[in-house]
Amino acid sequence: MKLSQGYWQTYKETPNDAEVISHQLMARAGMIFKSAGGIYNYLPMAQRSIRKIENIIREELDKIGCFEIHMSVITPADLWMETGRWEVMGPQMLRIKDRAERDLCVSPTNEETVTDIFRKTISSYKQLPLTLYQINTKFRDEIRPRFGLLRGREFTMKDAYSFHLNKECLDKVYENIYQAYVNIFNRMGLDFISVEADGGAMAGGGAKTHEFQVIADNGEDIIVTVPELKYAANIEKALTFRDKLDFLPKKELQEISTPNQSTCEEVCRAHGFKIFHSLKSIALTSITGSKEENLLVLVLGDDNLNEIKLSNYLKCDHLRVSQNTELEKNNLIKGYMGPYKSHKNLRIIFDSSIDLNSSYVIGANKIDTHLRGFVPSRDCLKYEQVDIRLSKEGDVIDNFKVVIKKGIEVGHVFQLGDKYTKSMKATVLNSQGQPVTPLMGCYGIGVTRTLASAIEQNNDKDGMIWPAAIAPYDVYLGAIAKDPEFKNFVSTIYQEFITNGIEVLFDDRYMGPGPMFKDADLLGLPLRIIVGERDYQQSKDIEIKVRKSGEVFKVKKEELLTFVKKKLKELGK
Amino acid sequence: MKLSQGYWQTYKETPNDAEVISHQLMARAGMIFKSAGGIYNYLPMAQRSIRKIENIIREELDKIGCFEIHMSVITPADLWMETGRWEVMGPQMLRIKDRAERDLCVSPTNEETVTDIFRKTISSYKQLPLTLYQINTKFRDEIRPRFGLLRGREFTMKDAYSFHLNKECLDKVYENIYQAYVNIFNRMGLDFISVEADGGAMAGGGAKTHEFQVIADNGEDIIVTVPELKYAANIEKALTFRDKLDFLPKKELQEISTPNQSTCEEVCRAHGFKIFHSLKSIALTSITGSKEENLLVLVLGDDNLNEIKLSNYLKCDHLRVSQNTELEKNNLIKGYMGPYKSHKNLRIIFDSSIDLNSSYVIGANKIDTHLRGFVPSRDCLKYEQVDIRLSKEGDVIDNFKVVIKKGIEVGHVFQLGDKYTKSMKATVLNSQGQPVTPLMGCYGIGVTRTLASAIEQNNDKDGMIWPAAIAPYDVYLGAIAKDPEFKNFVSTIYQEFITNGIEVLFDDRYMGPGPMFKDADLLGLPLRIIVGERDYQQSKDIEIKVRKSGEVFKVKKEELLTFVKKKLKELGK
Repeated sequence: MKLSQGYWQTYKETPNDAEVISHQLMARAGMIFKSAGGIYNYLPMAQRSIRKIENIIREELDKIGCFEIHMSVITPADLWMETGRWEVMGPQMLRIKDRAERDLCVSPTNEETVTDIFRKTISSYKQLPLTLYQINTKFRDEIRPRFGLLRGREFTMKDAYSFHLNKECLDKVYENIYQAYVNIFNRMGLDFISVEADGGAMAGGGAKTHEFQVIADNGEDIIVTVPELKYAANIEKALTFRDKLDFLPKKELQEISTPNQSTCEEVCRAHGFKIFHSLKSIALTSITGSKEENLLVLVLGDDNLNEIKLSNYLKCDHLRVSQNTELEKNNLIKGYMGPYKSHKNLRIIFDSSIDLNSSYVIGANKIDTHLRGFVPSRDCLKYEQVDIRLSKEGDVIDNFKVVIKKGIEVGHVFQLGDKYTKSMKATVLNSQGQPVTPLMGCYGIGVTRTLASAIEQNNDKDGMIWPAAIAPYDVYLGAIAKDPEFKNFVSTIYQEFITNGIEVLFDDRYMGPGPMFKDADLLGLPLRIIVGERDYQQSKDIEIKVRKSGEVFKVKKEELLTFVKKKLKELGK
Repeated sequence: MKLSQGYWQTYKETPNDAEVISHQLMARAGMIFKSAGGIYNYLPMAQRSIRKIENIIREELDKIGCFEIHMSVITPADLWMETGRWEVMGPQMLRIKDRAERDLCVSPTNEETVTDIFRKTISSYKQLPLTLYQINTKFRDEIRPRFGLLRGREFTMKDAYSFHLNKECLDKVYENIYQAYVNIFNRMGLDFISVEADGGAMAGGGAKTHEFQVIADNGEDIIVTVPELKYAANIEKALTFRDKLDFLPKKELQEISTPNQSTCEEVCRAHGFKIFHSLKSIALTSITGSKEENLLVLVLGDDNLNEIKLSNYLKCDHLRVSQNTELEKNNLIKGYMGPYKSHKNLRIIFDSSIDLNSSYVIGANKIDTHLRGFVPSRDCLKYEQVDIRLSKEGDVIDNFKVVIKKGIEVGHVFQLGDKYTKSMKATVLNSQGQPVTPLMGCYGIGVTRTLASAIEQNNDKDGMIWPAAIAPYDVYLGAIAKDPEFKNFVSTIYQEFITNGIEVLFDDRYMGPGPMFKDADLLGLPLRIIVGERDYQQSKDIEIKVRKSGEVFKVKKEELLTFVKKKLKELGK
């Protein structure tokens, strides 16, 4: 594209609501345009990158025998009612009544639709496995849409769904798609990590699932890794251990006066204990269907509770903080809570890092008072012990130190089991002619989120640094020239690039090197090529700068095309 | 794709609601799947064709310097309120309230969004002209969605919008895009015609606009053509003439008794007149804002009124049939209406085909009575004459006979003028630094409708006949074989095609020639190649059938690839 006839400009200002760097840079580089909160229009530079991302995804999925379909964006309520998700989805689902007062929604995901297609087109085990995918618009009415394309309401997603006769087959296709995802993100040139994740409400805690996380400082997800073990897990799922701790030996139980000392930190500091010599008591209530149960959960003083692990252990629907009336009923005194002398019906759960035969400081369930020398196995009547702590820096696995990283979830592979096929009565006949319920997997990639993540990961103070495979253009070609003949000469270079399939943005606005360099750095195409009239007349050199490394090369015109092709290939184009 | 591992099957039954052939064939060939009334999922065969259609559109628009963007599917009400279309769009617009009770809609079109993008990104005449386009999902809540993808509620559309400093520039870009459309539909291999159309409510009757119509027997649009003059117009717009008619000379006005003869046909038959010796009287009321006006409109007895021409002439908002009280007020007697002795305030309009100095039969405004010898110029006090008749078979232009065709509108190019830029206060600075309101054009192609139209136009009793450029695959490769070794041999042909970029559907189900030929004909890929074990062992011949012409060729394996490539090229691939 020639900028003189093009549609692109940069901006000095960033929008007020642009909190993260990808949002700021995409707005400044004229890539996106807000339509409403969490809803964006994509201008040509964004659209070009999006199409490259989509094509990489398509190529890798087609390669492993997935079939592309297109499901309707608007879906009827009937389908969602079959699985109960018309209720479960809550206000994040954008609901509509059409002119005949029929209930519809803007699809937030498509398990129901694809299962409906499946049950009406597939009848025999011989047609399995089958993986269908689409790249389409989704809408989730987030309470607080933010971070530009990272957490929008309308977004583009690739969603795939696989169907299987048995678990072995599901595992095999899951593995194939997992590997395709690795290829996809590798081809995009992104620094990513695949992590074990938690199944969450989608299929219970035991379901096999991995997230693909793009490593980025602004990432909202915390990833626990042990490079030596090639271990990586979402913090919600990670199973790590405290490094060796010298706990206190069994001692006599003894009250200590702790006025105005209601946290572990305060008590330990005042009384000379190490923080892990105290236990943090958390009063929660679990809710499962209509049943409620009061809990007292204990972790080491410097640990935090992982609510997801706890929920999975309890198999409950959700957890909430216990109310005052519940605390009273269980003899728990706020700020001075502990398992000692609590009501016998209170369910007490210790984290696995706690040595049940050592001494700890705990709340005495008495105002301004704690107990020292509390030994769980001795002083607690009834309890359970299970891993419910949140992993953190300093933890170990097999003596290897944990490394914590921040990531942005761009992909997710997930074994759904028979949740949807069962509730929607999708069956196939097996080899004995018996109807059986197939198993499903689902596999998502956030297309527009991947775009934003790529920028979150690849930028510097001057702007974006595009991975070559998904850059809007390959080359920013700029000219510093006054002589019309020399301008023509630069045009021939532009034409030569076009002819040879190199995507080139030709800055033929001749607005001077300063603004041109600024725009080029902000847009951050893989290569910047400057043809300066004066320099060229003297040395016949053309200057090529690699945006990522900052390296500068001087090349003669005859070698330019070959050099550019080679460099782009090195950069992952 | 190998069908043994593929996802495709045909059906014997057609859905109950499949009234037109494209809907029937797409359902039987497993291409589409209904999600709700007027909402379809596209299965792989449809999706493959859709992507080919989209790519042809993209290539031709990119070539003439249009820029691809992506506007949000969900748009906020504020924008639509600026132009008044939040009201005007009525129930065809699917409206939503989000969780914060803000009004949104599923975009039925995007003039407002693109004008909003324009006014925030373009400030100078130097940046003009600018044409932006997208290929995206649209939703129009039709009262009676029908005909499968021809008149669905959710559909895929290419919509483009151009911006200009002046009419000359708009005309030039309009012409470029018009030509790009010609290229697009030519490349798709469709028999189409571009016709002058009526601007309708979008921009008043005078706006320049053309429709691109795919010729098809089931088309809902009637196109008036004169091949010798290269004339083509939508019937709503067509200006044609009656062939020579021998009208009756001036005669004395005379009552005739016409009991139970209330139509022109009945009166003329009973009294020995030719049908065009009578005038049809139509009592209408025009509404313009809050103003209403009663009309009596007259056309020749065998002509019909073109309401759009009349509306454009009157510059009214709309027309309705006059009510009984209005007829009474104007002395009009139902079934025996005429301009004679009607109320002096009644506005009388004669069609141009009427010779004002000849004699006609008209209603006498008296029960069971008509008048003969009515001469408009003599017997009518006050009247207007204008072209308001509907063109029809038998008409002429410059002595050339009119040919009527039926078409399906797949594309539309339209000069919008300043309707949107004005109401949304979009301005640019002109060369004198003065803010001016740019002119707009808009240009649509119904992507999914084009797909269905291609099938409406190209089919026979056995199934679809794909134009090669948009066929799901190039070749249906089938084998009749039992010997595993021979099956392997056919596989090598399949692999050779794949390697050489030929898109091949390999029917390796070995279910016998009968069902295979049926499936192949139904799907209608450009070439069907059959490798039969027995025949091949004897003659070494491979049979190639061209679906469109029915021609059969016998080719040796060594020549197969070259032959297929050549044939596909001939067929427009």
